[in-house]
Amino acid sequence: MPQLRKDPIVGRWVIISTERAKRPRDYNLSSVQSQNGAFCPFCPGNEGTTPPEVMAYRDRGSPPNGPGWRLRVIPNKFPALMIEGGLDREGEGLYDIMNGVGAHEVIIESPHHHKSFSELDQREMENVIWSFRDRIIDLKRDSRFRYILVFKNRGAAAGASLEHTHCQLIALPIVPTNVREELAGSRSYYDLKERCIFCDIVHQELKDGSRVVLENEDILVVCPFAPKFPFEMWVLPKNHNAFFEDSKENEFKNLAQAMSLAFRKLDKALNHPPYNFILHTSPINDKSTTYYHWHFEIMPTLTRVAGFEWGSGFYINHTPPEDSAKFLRELEV
Amino acid sequence: MPQLRKDPIVGRWVIISTERAKRPRDYNLSSVQSQNGAFCPFCPGNEGTTPPEVMAYRDRGSPPNGPGWRLRVIPNKFPALMIEGGLDREGEGLYDIMNGVGAHEVIIESPHHHKSFSELDQREMENVIWSFRDRIIDLKRDSRFRYILVFKNRGAAAGASLEHTHCQLIALPIVPTNVREELAGSRSYYDLKERCIFCDIVHQELKDGSRVVLENEDILVVCPFAPKFPFEMWVLPKNHNAFFEDSKENEFKNLAQAMSLAFRKLDKALNHPPYNFILHTSPINDKSTTYYHWHFEIMPTLTRVAGFEWGSGFYINHTPPEDSAKFLRELEV
Repeated sequence: MPQLRKDPIVGRWVIISTERAKRPRDYNLSSVQSQNGAFCPFCPGNEGTTPPEVMAYRDRGSPPNGPGWRLRVIPNKFPALMIEGGLDREGEGLYDIMNGVGAHEVIIESPHHHKSFSELDQREMENVIWSFRDRIIDLKRDSRFRYILVFKNRGAAAGASLEHTHCQLIALPIVPTNVREELAGSRSYYDLKERCIFCDIVHQELKDGSRVVLENEDILVVCPFAPKFPFEMWVLPKNHNAFFEDSKENEFKNLAQAMSLAFRKLDKALNHPPYNFILHTSPINDKSTTYYHWHFEIMPTLTRVAGFEWGSGFYINHTPPEDSAKFLRELEV
Repeated sequence: MPQLRKDPIVGRWVIISTERAKRPRDYNLSSVQSQNGAFCPFCPGNEGTTPPEVMAYRDRGSPPNGPGWRLRVIPNKFPALMIEGGLDREGEGLYDIMNGVGAHEVIIESPHHHKSFSELDQREMENVIWSFRDRIIDLKRDSRFRYILVFKNRGAAAGASLEHTHCQLIALPIVPTNVREELAGSRSYYDLKERCIFCDIVHQELKDGSRVVLENEDILVVCPFAPKFPFEMWVLPKNHNAFFEDSKENEFKNLAQAMSLAFRKLDKALNHPPYNFILHTSPINDKSTTYYHWHFEIMPTLTRVAGFEWGSGFYINHTPPEDSAKFLRELEV
């Protein structure tokens, strides 16, 4: 069973895998090889090599764990957290430990091995978005979980170990530090102004225009005012909503359209860069309805995080967001 | 002038370089080439190609900005922050900006291009440590600065752009987020227990022993209980002291001995890995004397930070610190 351990000073949790403990020689310090021609467990026909599927969008009548799917969700074969067991909180002197209980799933977005995320068509992109919603709604029913984190690693430099396009989802027994910080920040803004800070950002960015990448009826894509990384983008719903899974059908449709366009622009601007994106949404059963506002953050991996960033929590960004927004906005795709 | 911009939600500052703004093609997505045989501005004889030195430990009678130095401190040629100017705080709607005022210096640890940090002899390592102290004491006198961050990036994967062994120092006009978090955490522990949490960690680790890498009269090196990264090490003075620069001569001597040994072990265990280390010390003129405790954190760059870590602030570590400490402790160097 993996352990959750808490840093006693700053309260940051880490997951310590105790089962497949790595020795020094297990860390591959060279870069990940291209996987051209290698066996892909995410391709149709290889369903038997993955853990049994949790959910799939399938052709009518096709049986589970065989071909015929358009999107497939499976447990991660090497999960960071284990689905079985209780939390078993305990202390060890001044330290805190609990069992690494959680769900770790993989969303295989398309049966086509060579399609990248930005190449998904409108229908496929909508499937991806609906799968986030469907998995969140299902996992919320497990009372051990406090937060469901949906994210994507694309490219080896961004942490992906397989190239077949996929997202991941981790259900956690605690609300993670970064989410708590965002909730606290937006809560204190609300307490001061009685307005949602993200709604204010949407209004100010639409009025100003200089950081807008694209928009449609429901969705705004901007380069944020204080981006950690060059070409970082935030995807915000224009209407206030704390919980991603409560969005309306029309919002998901427009989200799919905006995401497709944003990633096509990103891929063209930076020649298919490695990146991460993360869904920021409210914790399960949270009371954040009035002050929080779900959104996606997209972070291209163009630079290295180094000593200054680790030590300070500051980031140094050599591309002003006004420049990257203008570049992306004007790029034809 | 670079800008400091504040994320309006979580309060994180970023430095936006507005002068040498990078366009998409300026981001080199391939890995950094080996610099064998290339021109090195940090080598003796090339002093004229760097900005004039701020400080140096030199042979008696050798003039500044020529050979004859054993350690040399220069302003960074491409500084993240600018030494001249006022802070000029201002708002832009809901956003906050100030001028990127600060110092950014490079500490060239040795004239020998091919010596790595772990290969410095005791005298050279002591010079490095004294240079941190001397620069901190000098920069503290500038009333615009609130924090001085000393760190090292070793290897391209850890953010180094030159291979000649060096550290960096950035003086900041604000206390950075990560430092504030550590201060707040140790303050709240002190309020509860009237003891320094780092002193308690030193006692518990010495008693337990399973995470100890090495120790001497003044210094303890451990793999921390909840490490973000595999083979992470913390270097802690056994005696309570909030301010690094107030350490006694004997402590610096023993720190140099412990650092040399720790880095020789790390280089041998992981075949000269890329890494960062960061000096954690109190902000200038802070009242943290009773509850904070300076230390170094050493973080090998063996894994990639990916979507899960960015989204949660959690880290997944596949090597328990008890395993890495045992390995490092037993390694003969």
